[in-house]
Amino acid sequence: MYVVVAYDIRTDTKAGQKRLRRIAQVCVNHGQRVQKSVFECQVDELQFADLVRQLRDVIHPAEDSIRIYRVHDFSKRTLVSLGREIGIDFEEPMIL
Amino acid sequence: MYVVVAYDIRTDTKAGQKRLRRIAQVCVNHGQRVQKSVFECQVDELQFADLVRQLRDVIHPAEDSIRIYRVHDFSKRTLVSLGREIGIDFEEPMIL
Repeated sequence: MYVVVAYDIRTDTKAGQKRLRRIAQVCVNHGQRVQKSVFECQVDELQFADLVRQLRDVIHPAEDSIRIYRVHDFSKRTLVSLGREIGIDFEEPMIL
Repeated sequence: MYVVVAYDIRTDTKAGQKRLRRIAQVCVNHGQRVQKSVFECQVDELQFADLVRQLRDVIHPAEDSIRIYRVHDFSKRTLVSLGREIGIDFEEPMIL
């Protein structure tokens, strides 16, 4: 399953800046950063539940917003990318 | 068709700030802001092509990033929203 995570974290406090780092880390653990606060992930149902749970544990519900979009039928037509590109094609072999 | 638009615009120049305003305006004309730089739109194929064309006309390809995700089978399971919510349910009657 292909998932897009977009977040808006209030960072005018130290606590907010800490949440931002932790939320970004959770996303890095599950996928690929494609914009400052947008990640794309290829996960199964278990990993998806884990991702949502970890994000829910960190977020401040009244100050932050995280929107997680599941895209089941991901194809070449799903994404139109304009401008700078920092995404990686998941099908390509990852050179570690 | 349900569409999510996420953008990252370089705003350390006057020109970038102007692009940001114009890109936000194009998105407002096609949908609903749900985060600072994320919009959700309900569009048909013609409106989608119009949205992409207008964004492409404004963007600075080397400095900005716009990612447009088409979600054909949008359902209640498509979106998980954590924290503050500023989206509108498109099925609800819009009070004008």
